[in-house]
Amino acid sequence: MPSYKAPVDEFKFILKDFLKVLDYTDTPGFESVDGELIDQILENGAKFYEEVWAPLNMVGDEQGCTLENGVVRTPEGFKDAFQQAAAGGWNSLSIPEAFGGAGLPDILSSCIAEMGNSSNQSLAMYGGLSMAALWSLMALGNDFQKSVIVPKLVAGEWTGTMNLTEPHCGTDLKLMKTKAVAQDDGTYRITGTKIFISGGDHDLTDNIIHMVIAKVPDDHGKLNDSLGAVNFFMVPKFLINEDGSIGEANGVSTGSIEKKMGIKGNATCVLNYDNAIAYKVPESQPKAASAGGEKKSSVSGMAGMFLMMNGARMGVGMQGYAQSEVAYQNAALYANDRLQGRSLSGAKNPDGAADPIIVFPDVRRMLMMSRAFTEGARALHMWLSFLGTSASKSTNPEEQMASGEISNLLTPVIKGYLTDMGFHCTNAAMQCFGGHGFIREHGMEQFVRDSRINQIYEGANGVQALDLLGRKVFANGMQGTNAFFNMIDEEISGAVGVDRLDGMAQSLGRGISDLKAATHWVAENALVNREQAGAASYDYMTMFGTVALGLMWLKMMKVATSKLDSSEGDAAFLNSKIAHGNFWAQKMLPDTASLLVKIQAGSDVLMELDASAF
Amino acid sequence: MPSYKAPVDEFKFILKDFLKVLDYTDTPGFESVDGELIDQILENGAKFYEEVWAPLNMVGDEQGCTLENGVVRTPEGFKDAFQQAAAGGWNSLSIPEAFGGAGLPDILSSCIAEMGNSSNQSLAMYGGLSMAALWSLMALGNDFQKSVIVPKLVAGEWTGTMNLTEPHCGTDLKLMKTKAVAQDDGTYRITGTKIFISGGDHDLTDNIIHMVIAKVPDDHGKLNDSLGAVNFFMVPKFLINEDGSIGEANGVSTGSIEKKMGIKGNATCVLNYDNAIAYKVPESQPKAASAGGEKKSSVSGMAGMFLMMNGARMGVGMQGYAQSEVAYQNAALYANDRLQGRSLSGAKNPDGAADPIIVFPDVRRMLMMSRAFTEGARALHMWLSFLGTSASKSTNPEEQMASGEISNLLTPVIKGYLTDMGFHCTNAAMQCFGGHGFIREHGMEQFVRDSRINQIYEGANGVQALDLLGRKVFANGMQGTNAFFNMIDEEISGAVGVDRLDGMAQSLGRGISDLKAATHWVAENALVNREQAGAASYDYMTMFGTVALGLMWLKMMKVATSKLDSSEGDAAFLNSKIAHGNFWAQKMLPDTASLLVKIQAGSDVLMELDASAF
Repeated sequence: MPSYKAPVDEFKFILKDFLKVLDYTDTPGFESVDGELIDQILENGAKFYEEVWAPLNMVGDEQGCTLENGVVRTPEGFKDAFQQAAAGGWNSLSIPEAFGGAGLPDILSSCIAEMGNSSNQSLAMYGGLSMAALWSLMALGNDFQKSVIVPKLVAGEWTGTMNLTEPHCGTDLKLMKTKAVAQDDGTYRITGTKIFISGGDHDLTDNIIHMVIAKVPDDHGKLNDSLGAVNFFMVPKFLINEDGSIGEANGVSTGSIEKKMGIKGNATCVLNYDNAIAYKVPESQPKAASAGGEKKSSVSGMAGMFLMMNGARMGVGMQGYAQSEVAYQNAALYANDRLQGRSLSGAKNPDGAADPIIVFPDVRRMLMMSRAFTEGARALHMWLSFLGTSASKSTNPEEQMASGEISNLLTPVIKGYLTDMGFHCTNAAMQCFGGHGFIREHGMEQFVRDSRINQIYEGANGVQALDLLGRKVFANGMQGTNAFFNMIDEEISGAVGVDRLDGMAQSLGRGISDLKAATHWVAENALVNREQAGAASYDYMTMFGTVALGLMWLKMMKVATSKLDSSEGDAAFLNSKIAHGNFWAQKMLPDTASLLVKIQAGSDVLMELDASAF
Repeated sequence: MPSYKAPVDEFKFILKDFLKVLDYTDTPGFESVDGELIDQILENGAKFYEEVWAPLNMVGDEQGCTLENGVVRTPEGFKDAFQQAAAGGWNSLSIPEAFGGAGLPDILSSCIAEMGNSSNQSLAMYGGLSMAALWSLMALGNDFQKSVIVPKLVAGEWTGTMNLTEPHCGTDLKLMKTKAVAQDDGTYRITGTKIFISGGDHDLTDNIIHMVIAKVPDDHGKLNDSLGAVNFFMVPKFLINEDGSIGEANGVSTGSIEKKMGIKGNATCVLNYDNAIAYKVPESQPKAASAGGEKKSSVSGMAGMFLMMNGARMGVGMQGYAQSEVAYQNAALYANDRLQGRSLSGAKNPDGAADPIIVFPDVRRMLMMSRAFTEGARALHMWLSFLGTSASKSTNPEEQMASGEISNLLTPVIKGYLTDMGFHCTNAAMQCFGGHGFIREHGMEQFVRDSRINQIYEGANGVQALDLLGRKVFANGMQGTNAFFNMIDEEISGAVGVDRLDGMAQSLGRGISDLKAATHWVAENALVNREQAGAASYDYMTMFGTVALGLMWLKMMKVATSKLDSSEGDAAFLNSKIAHGNFWAQKMLPDTASLLVKIQAGSDVLMELDASAF
């Protein structure tokens, strides 16, 4: 069975040295944060996820979920482990105290969420989707929802879900057929079928709060295909009495659960809504006098959905590197343990029958790629989560102005690039095991199968790439993009010629230059032909992610260099940071050159064939 | 359930237009080949594998193999399907008539073998490994083995296996512990444990011929760690009487079968040998008078193993593109069928609720990559299989001299690059399905799981990369490498400035220039520091494969252009060839530039950290 050790030293480095969160104790939300609290949370969290959740990961994969007589059962041990996490408050660290959480900064709950996803992604998803539901209710819910339902979700007494996809309709919401009909009492009745609902039903808690998008019929009772008809609803599995107790079953039932490639411990449900009682979120506004019905409030409903989805996209990006973290750990242990062959530069274990395979450059290539990605990805994710806070103190006016824009810009990169590379690196970690990696008992192939979903759900990565180039890069006069590019230029200019940093500065310099050239090329060419943006989008997202991780590595290398220069901290740890940064500079950033050529090749080669030729 | 249509038109194009096999009817082995025979074999084979084998692929995955009371059972329908293939002679098309085959050229059985692997890789492996065993017995066996055992393998009455790996020993044969002790009657007794034995036991046939490597103890009865002690043996599951009938059980039993990520329909066995009667292949030679025991014959034994392994490596390379072929087919159907969103350049299906996703450039990118890879890979594999024959008539003296060298050179590229890209493209095909790709019933995720083994078995791809750069590229004064590079230069020089070919000629020109620069860099630097070869090897193999497929595409584009110019053949088919060749030129070949930079970055970044840092 594979092992998992939460990377506590990494988290401490990111929090204390990289983001310097202890400098922010005069900032709202950070008042109670000190070094000891951070250590205590990380160490206790680590112990819990290592000891309670990780051992259940293979159990979940072997047993999967079952549906019998309409009841979904999760794998053995999941209910207890879920409830222990809830009781420990691990899911609600950063929820405001008013809602029953600990009121700590998001950046701390990020570390805990990663531990949950590394130790057991399937189990983590039940609570993760509750978070998505409760964020939208905290933001848009009415008093009852905020005061009664949100605290139940925070406490882990109930869970939440997101209901978007239908059999014929994933990305294209206009095709949606699920119907929400307004009632005189202000509620709605929802009828339709939703699929791919993660944690859509289970036996972990007594109630489930489904957040559902559905179409409100027009004045003629018809579903039209405008996005304005799409609204956002709360539909509890069991109705909720005024005192918060559970009432009658609502009109929602589980049609089936999917047999999947991975994340088998999470029940992926087909949910059938049959006149289910639904509550509009936010509550219905009076109809506008003009035509168009409830347009105003439906826009807010879409906003609620996007709020939920953006949080979920950040969460999925994290799942990408959470899987490569645990896969890397096991591959590194194996590479130090497995004796096979001899080093090309002379025996390194002369008294043994053979050398450990860590002596081979190509094994190190796979391991260093995984680790350089994982640590860079974690830095990017946490840096972005902290950007609003750090910008409030930044001396960089652009960072200050543009933190929201940069956050929007990087969200599809976090989801798309981090899950692509997460899968790629998890797969490389499996490869280090040779034939043993293909055998289930080692657990490596489960990481690969579980990791694969991250490239798909919350918008397939091709959709993320199109979102990046179609909606984000050129938005608002490129304010966010220019701010981000300027940050990179500035970071490079402070590193050129500096010992231990110059190599990365040069390499990142070529990377950002390629990225600017690609951006410029798309801006010019997509104006003439919009297919150019679609054709460029995937390579562009890959290039963007490669450069963004380069920025993180340069920043981390600066911290490590400065600590080494002042003989602070663990030298082995800091030298590893510099070595992995150099790996990113020398073995990953060079990709931008080829990606630029491919982008500039344009869309004709893709579009010239007739559809019937495929 | 996914579908499979054998790519008969592709095979016809490769055989008739690309390799022009009908020009070789005066060449030994090709006397009876004519266009009608080719069509008949391809069409009947297609019908058989589409209708009989393909429907069992998911059955094999769902049911897997079982071991009960020492007996291995294969999935429902496998035995009948295996026996139908044997009765149809599909496995033995290219085996000499003297051994019971049809005596047709290998190039024809290549097409049939691909159909077997696309329709059902797990089932194909049972017969595929029989081929590996029978090749080695045809080459090195004694009269009894050739006259009695080989025909049984040819007829599919028995199957064969390859036994190399042990629990502690995969690549490093020196660590082997399985022992073969010589008996006075010239036989040996083998004791030890072999693992990962594909088709190691099953219920398809009455007997199994295990080809086993084991160490013969030295004169003191000890196993030393020299490769000279490694010998090659035949060990039947049941002993064989002189008349070919089956006798007593031999001392080999199935310890367990592995639970695996994929290829679940193939029984991967742990085989325990306990004093099993074994026959040395080739038969023992008299001991040399000098020390070193049976060194002479053991060299031949290793040669037998490499003969078997080289054949197997070519077979695995084929499995790489056989999986991407069937995965591509299903993704292309889905992309034409699934309605979602609208084209960026205006509705293409205005009467429908949405456009099919084939209108999106990024979906086309995934499909065209898969198809350009698959068709290029097939061309490379078949071109290489045919090289000995075509060289005999070539006007290119280097090709004539060096066909054997080129074949050795490209074997690790076929195994490594074709299975890496096969997995990558199969995975891309799955991605086209969005969330539905993750669901087992669509069958796409099975293709990904099955395809994953190809990067591992018969030598993990990192080992292939090291073989390419460590043993092949610089072998024999680079005769094969130079010949191959010269062929590419010559092919380019005939295409520069030619309509429809110039783009590829330019792009391939940059590719071969990068590949030569990489070769030169490694030659210079690995002399000083051997780790440089190890560090460069993987990127080098990827670059080599990318360029080799570029050569194939340029050759195919020439054929297509010439046929279009003379209004021969199906214009849509030929235009698709040119479009996919252009895809390779514009979207794949540019990778060589980045790979060269990574290679030239050298090994220091990989080797500087202590093993304990991982």
